[in-house]
Amino acid sequence: MAALNSLSILAFALLALSAPLAVVAGDPDILTDFVVPEPVLGIPFNVTSDYFTFHGFRGSFNRSAPPHESFNVTKASMAEFPALNGQSVSYAALSFPPGSVNPTHTHPRASELLLLLRGALAVGFVDTAGKLYTQDLAAGDMFVFPKGTVHWQCNQGSGPAFALSGFGSAAAGLVSVPVTVFGTGIDDTVLAKSFKTDVPTVQKLKAALTPPPKTA
Amino acid sequence: MAALNSLSILAFALLALSAPLAVVAGDPDILTDFVVPEPVLGIPFNVTSDYFTFHGFRGSFNRSAPPHESFNVTKASMAEFPALNGQSVSYAALSFPPGSVNPTHTHPRASELLLLLRGALAVGFVDTAGKLYTQDLAAGDMFVFPKGTVHWQCNQGSGPAFALSGFGSAAAGLVSVPVTVFGTGIDDTVLAKSFKTDVPTVQKLKAALTPPPKTA
Amino acid sequence: MAALNSLSILAFALLALSAPLAVVAGDPDILTDFVVPEPVLGIPFNVTSDYFTFHGFRGSFNRSAPPHESFNVTKASMAEFPALNGQSVSYAALSFPPGSVNPTHTHPRASELLLLLRGALAVGFVDTAGKLYTQDLAAGDMFVFPKGTVHWQCNQGSGPAFALSGFGSAAAGLVSVPVTVFGTGIDDTVLAKSFKTDVPTVQKLKAALTPPPKTA
Amino acid sequence: MAALNSLSILAFALLALSAPLAVVAGDPDILTDFVVPEPVLGIPFNVTSDYFTFHGFRGSFNRSAPPHESFNVTKASMAEFPALNGQSVSYAALSFPPGSVNPTHTHPRASELLLLLRGALAVGFVDTAGKLYTQDLAAGDMFVFPKGTVHWQCNQGSGPAFALSGFGSAAAGLVSVPVTVFGTGIDDTVLAKSFKTDVPTVQKLKAALTPPPKTA
Amino acid sequence: MAALNSLSILAFALLALSAPLAVVAGDPDILTDFVVPEPVLGIPFNVTSDYFTFHGFRGSFNRSAPPHESFNVTKASMAEFPALNGQSVSYAALSFPPGSVNPTHTHPRASELLLLLRGALAVGFVDTAGKLYTQDLAAGDMFVFPKGTVHWQCNQGSGPAFALSGFGSAAAGLVSVPVTVFGTGIDDTVLAKSFKTDVPTVQKLKAALTPPPKTA
Amino acid sequence: MAALNSLSILAFALLALSAPLAVVAGDPDILTDFVVPEPVLGIPFNVTSDYFTFHGFRGSFNRSAPPHESFNVTKASMAEFPALNGQSVSYAALSFPPGSVNPTHTHPRASELLLLLRGALAVGFVDTAGKLYTQDLAAGDMFVFPKGTVHWQCNQGSGPAFALSGFGSAAAGLVSVPVTVFGTGIDDTVLAKSFKTDVPTVQKLKAALTPPPKTA
Repeated sequence: MAALNSLSILAFALLALSAPLAVVAGDPDILTDFVVPEPVLGIPFNVTSDYFTFHGFRGSFNRSAPPHESFNVTKASMAEFPALNGQSVSYAALSFPPGSVNPTHTHPRASELLLLLRGALAVGFVDTAGKLYTQDLAAGDMFVFPKGTVHWQCNQGSGPAFALSGFGSAAAGLVSVPVTVFGTGIDDTVLAKSFKTDVPTVQKLKAALTPPPKTA
Repeated sequence: MAALNSLSILAFALLALSAPLAVVAGDPDILTDFVVPEPVLGIPFNVTSDYFTFHGFRGSFNRSAPPHESFNVTKASMAEFPALNGQSVSYAALSFPPGSVNPTHTHPRASELLLLLRGALAVGFVDTAGKLYTQDLAAGDMFVFPKGTVHWQCNQGSGPAFALSGFGSAAAGLVSVPVTVFGTGIDDTVLAKSFKTDVPTVQKLKAALTPPPKTA
Repeated sequence: MAALNSLSILAFALLALSAPLAVVAGDPDILTDFVVPEPVLGIPFNVTSDYFTFHGFRGSFNRSAPPHESFNVTKASMAEFPALNGQSVSYAALSFPPGSVNPTHTHPRASELLLLLRGALAVGFVDTAGKLYTQDLAAGDMFVFPKGTVHWQCNQGSGPAFALSGFGSAAAGLVSVPVTVFGTGIDDTVLAKSFKTDVPTVQKLKAALTPPPKTA
Repeated sequence: MAALNSLSILAFALLALSAPLAVVAGDPDILTDFVVPEPVLGIPFNVTSDYFTFHGFRGSFNRSAPPHESFNVTKASMAEFPALNGQSVSYAALSFPPGSVNPTHTHPRASELLLLLRGALAVGFVDTAGKLYTQDLAAGDMFVFPKGTVHWQCNQGSGPAFALSGFGSAAAGLVSVPVTVFGTGIDDTVLAKSFKTDVPTVQKLKAALTPPPKTA
Repeated sequence: MAALNSLSILAFALLALSAPLAVVAGDPDILTDFVVPEPVLGIPFNVTSDYFTFHGFRGSFNRSAPPHESFNVTKASMAEFPALNGQSVSYAALSFPPGSVNPTHTHPRASELLLLLRGALAVGFVDTAGKLYTQDLAAGDMFVFPKGTVHWQCNQGSGPAFALSGFGSAAAGLVSVPVTVFGTGIDDTVLAKSFKTDVPTVQKLKAALTPPPKTA
Repeated sequence: MAALNSLSILAFALLALSAPLAVVAGDPDILTDFVVPEPVLGIPFNVTSDYFTFHGFRGSFNRSAPPHESFNVTKASMAEFPALNGQSVSYAALSFPPGSVNPTHTHPRASELLLLLRGALAVGFVDTAGKLYTQDLAAGDMFVFPKGTVHWQCNQGSGPAFALSGFGSAAAGLVSVPVTVFGTGIDDTVLAKSFKTDVPTVQKLKAALTPPPKTA
């Protein structure tokens, strides 16, 4: 039984080990065609065609499915599609009911190339010099948001809008400005001074943007 | 008039200069939000929202347009959409009538992440160890072709298929294997020895793949 | 005089040309020890020791100088110190009077390594998973803010604080969240929906953060 | 004995683990002078001068050895010489009997700089615009084949030719076009349509290029 | 007890494993905000604010502490401050008593941006073309030493000098020329021929620069 | 004549411009197959096969040519072979008469992979931890010197030795330690303190290593 215990610890150790190792891999060129996932418990990963295939967008492109009720994003990045590790590319499918907004946000690790598949979108970004660029897109139009800039999209039309965004990284990352700033517990005074406003205004914004506590 | 002449030479010189300079720019990180095109004749390029917008795919997504008669690719890379310079991302729209094939090819500078929007596709690639990976994709499926590997897509269904491919480079490049090998004038003997075949077979392949001479 | 004119145009053309060319240079490894600035009017730049020297921080380290009245940042990046082009490193000197804040911001192109030289600072950042990290720093302490994350510093003490920040890029870039979001003219409705608030609250924040128009 | 078993599993697990870990390492700059191989069974790798030394080319440069009967390549890449991991450089020694050809191929991860040591070679490549470049090399000549382009070498002379190729990657990779396309099992119809030929021609090429099944 | 033994071996194995794994991580962009250290014995590393904080420079900035008696460097690189892994930035604090010298050295993996905080320094480097650049710095001045070049600093004043150096790498590396060349056991003849001098001069230099053997 | 003058200035300006532009190009991936040289006076560079060909090593491999009288290096880097720009690879041919030494040096921008073609060589390097690695090479042996480390080669045999070195950069750079340290005018006191020796010893070394002034 002692041996069983040490085996269990070994299994746990290797499982725990396998996750953070992927952390080290980067978007820079790899020295192989693709990155093979770590073995688990010493059993090498068997690479087949299925490893290179992703089914998670099937629902996103079903025209007869009921539309989303609010802005929705479905990702195909390294987290959802591990074969993208080392391939420097990923996608996100964006669904906009009428009047919905993809709130102001940044991607720390990639530019975004948005292609509007259906509907109409108003989009924009602010460059690091503080200059605002906005555009109204029709179906088939494309717009590029440079890496790290604050940007957003808004469906001001009467029908749904659907867009696909490509990124030059397998893990572009997302910083949603409202939730990051007002929904993660940053000190009220820091925020009031940052936004040149009063604490009650900060608290009002926080109330709307802080996720409710998880309860059993 | 002498001054006019030297001014013309200057204009020509700067125009000629402006093209190859872009050659030096690379996909590695840039030190700015985006790359501003060169001035022409000393007039700085005026960057507006239109610079970040691309309309070239509008026709590609028009469901009521008549389908292509043969396999067709429309690109949105740095060549067609200059704002992609330095942003490390680009797209290609692929249209497959029934029975058509995107011939065996490689991309020297990026992996390809294909998303099948409509129809069905059989896809495949061969890794550098010579292992073949094939897959049948349904609408909404995604497949990743690692950088530099030989790959293809084939519409074996009865309806048209339409796919969108994202690349982690603004200039992925394309090496179409059949045309590159048999349609650019490589010596018959080199090809016969490479493919372990006879010169008549090489010449037959060349006849089918060599573009006809351009005539007035 | 015709020659003078064309010479003037040439001068203007080359000056205009010289600025955006630097745009193409990146933080990736260079093929030389350093990047030599473009010639102006055909006269090659004479590289001396002064090119590698920067005097812009002399005032920042004068302990007998009167302190800043509000948060102040002095930069030594590629813009102020051209020799940093290609060297992948830069500095910023940060001066905090008591009670002042360096508002929530991101750097798109580098992590920041802050060293507190004098006083005390409360610092923090939010990672892309939405987790908040805060710390109270004493003189001599260091804190690293990962690339692209929202972060801030705040002097909650009674004396001035002074910090030096190093960046692993010659042009880290700065996105000040408050001014970028509320001070550049983004549509009120987009902001209200992004921040889950009402338009009057957005307009109140905008009033505080929009720079006044420049008048003669 | 239970403990012995778990120890064996541990040994197996660590051995299995040690191989794919190297997969993650890339040609981008490393943070150390060199990459130390993984420990095996917990015993750290002892780095000595022998780690940096490779003897595999001794035969390749022995002028009195009998020449190869067909085109032969001996590699010194990361697979054969592990110390190259992270050093971004590797070699291949190429031996050409009279009339032999190094078939059309690409390297996905590096350009090739070929130096002809003895004999004469006809070489060529096709760029991604489809332009053919050919050259006749004499002993001492060098030729560079850009990354990812289709290229080949052919000894049209009466004596043997010997060349050394350097690569700017420790793992340049090799895609031999004939075997990759016709020797890995790609569907006949896909190939016939790709090469605008008939299935019998494809099958004839396949017969010559498909490796025979391995039998006991 | 057998199980205990195998557990001990496991512990040792994982500890041994954890060190060299970090070796693979590089300064190129990472796919995460930061690199999480490896788990030890299967227990995941708990990332808190303390991980991003470094206290090792507290003594370096204490003006009332007794000064160093000889040139002293305190580093905050990845080795001392593991959170810098993947962040491409690090610091060194340099303390110069009057008359002291930071001997001629190079950094293989980063340029150095030196900021003189107190006192006066004479600094210099030699570029790869053999051109010497020297400068006299006053407090507040900055000087950049390009990556890989031989450089030095010297306090020729009567008071102490104190500088802070930033590097665009988490592990810039250090090659001290005198000790590396004359203190590591390189063959006398090789050195005499390299420096165009005689063996006694080499031996004299070696005697001064070779560290004494460690004795119990 | 005014026009001629402005034309001359233009020609001079463009020529001056063409040199430093190449400075910006780096070893990171390019967005094209190869880098086309700048136009001169507005005339685009005509890229032919000759651009990719280098003849400068022909003499280096002529076995019947008289050997060099002292250590000699012939380079094929970007400076001598412009097509290497962007290809991340270069060569150096090294010729060692008996008893000669390639003095202690570093390459700031690449590791070196030395292949000994003829004769015997003793080689070595010191890593950044100060550990010495030495090896005796026979013909056909290879040795890798990590980027930025101090290394050397020495022919201790009775016959000539000839080696070829490959680099993973088109411009590896060279810092010859003896000449850089003692032959470029660094202050005597700085050197005496660096090498823990006296000024007369420094001056003796300088006398041997400083190039004689160029006289008419």
